[in-house]
Amino acid sequence: MKIERILLAAGERGAADDEVAVEAPLEIRVGGKALTVVMRTPGHDEELARGFLYAESLIDAAADIVAVTRPAALTGDEVGNVVAVTLRAGVRTPAGERLFYASSSCGVCGKNAISTLRVRAPVESPLSSSFAVLATRLGELPERLRAAQPLFARTGGVHASGLFAADGTLELAREDVGRHNALDKVIGWALEHGRLPLADRLLAVSGRVSYDIVQKAIAAGLPLIAAVGAPSTLAIDLAEQFAVTLVGFLRDGGMNVYTHGERVI
Amino acid sequence: MKIERILLAAGERGAADDEVAVEAPLEIRVGGKALTVVMRTPGHDEELARGFLYAESLIDAAADIVAVTRPAALTGDEVGNVVAVTLRAGVRTPAGERLFYASSSCGVCGKNAISTLRVRAPVESPLSSSFAVLATRLGELPERLRAAQPLFARTGGVHASGLFAADGTLELAREDVGRHNALDKVIGWALEHGRLPLADRLLAVSGRVSYDIVQKAIAAGLPLIAAVGAPSTLAIDLAEQFAVTLVGFLRDGGMNVYTHGERVI
Repeated sequence: MKIERILLAAGERGAADDEVAVEAPLEIRVGGKALTVVMRTPGHDEELARGFLYAESLIDAAADIVAVTRPAALTGDEVGNVVAVTLRAGVRTPAGERLFYASSSCGVCGKNAISTLRVRAPVESPLSSSFAVLATRLGELPERLRAAQPLFARTGGVHASGLFAADGTLELAREDVGRHNALDKVIGWALEHGRLPLADRLLAVSGRVSYDIVQKAIAAGLPLIAAVGAPSTLAIDLAEQFAVTLVGFLRDGGMNVYTHGERVI
Repeated sequence: MKIERILLAAGERGAADDEVAVEAPLEIRVGGKALTVVMRTPGHDEELARGFLYAESLIDAAADIVAVTRPAALTGDEVGNVVAVTLRAGVRTPAGERLFYASSSCGVCGKNAISTLRVRAPVESPLSSSFAVLATRLGELPERLRAAQPLFARTGGVHASGLFAADGTLELAREDVGRHNALDKVIGWALEHGRLPLADRLLAVSGRVSYDIVQKAIAAGLPLIAAVGAPSTLAIDLAEQFAVTLVGFLRDGGMNVYTHGERVI
């Protein structure tokens, strides 16, 4: 888009071109009813819907989803911004229970009391994973993740989540204006491809790590989270409790290891 | 807290002290019922509750709130993490209508369909504000805001919202792990002190600007948003529509002016 660019030292002000990160609402319908609206960067919407439903414990398995489709009759802002999820018969439909969730940009969606804040730990993955990675390998990940962020390179306005193997190979990266959406897209991909729990992968994220990121990583069975930014206290508490290795401030040739350092060699 | 610090070049690994940004749930009760849980940095909780209720259009005026108190009988995780709002008789209680909202970390809380995404524009402030500021003054704000961020200096893990006058004077700054919470705290302060609409102030934010930040700024009647980070397309659209000046990438001696540049001199 056309913008004005001001350079203070040069005293210049003029027209410039700027590419802006796209943010648009995605309405997720379940069983024909609107469940939630997520503000996301368009692309990989089906993954986002799958990952959101799984990470927020609205479904338990890939087979709970029969189909994710684009409704035909849409108007106005809805065009391109609605996905419809059909659940397997017998799976409870949250929308039907009026339990509407709000947004994947928070980890407490749909929860209105502290007593309802419970984290789902996948039974099949107690995170006693023997996964381990060399510290020097971790040090290379931010640059590799950055190289897989074409949107960030153009806009400077999106977050990323990347799945890496222990040898530093990038398997998948997703970008989004919402860091939680980027992770939901990764989880949705893994769910669809029968890859959960992700016990032999680590998650690298471009930003900070709060409660919700750790919660989603636990739901996906990820044993290690490596973040360029800072963690919060609640993120550390949750990682400690569920035996997830949490690495933060992964930059400038160093890193902080907050929990379960035995997986960092 | 005690952590492990790894320095790759030096091949060093050892214990270190690290201060981490506190994230904890805040349950906001309205009329005795739990309305929402917000993940926030403790401090200025009453402002957060007031600002959240106002910016999300659950109340219309400061007088709608009779009191914000700390309930006495709390247990476990609730201790220190619950505020109870008493509304004026006659003000509808959203919790009673089961319209529970989810978190201030998103701008679409409680909305489950695109058709319900509507922004509240304060009738008393059509944002035809004659507010204007020198570009050179804007250039000084990130450093001034940073100087008012003691938590960020210690933890590197919190966002900030600051209210500035046109001459660059900082009036108020609030920090939080959630950038939306930081803004809600500012709005809650303004509401409590009879300062809305904030037609003669600008909002400086430490991070990016998405839909929800602009939505809240409009609710507070703020004529200009200056952000160190990038805006999203929806943020720009909303700012354009409601005549808010939106400045982004305010750093490195320059800035991008996305909307209503007439307020930047």
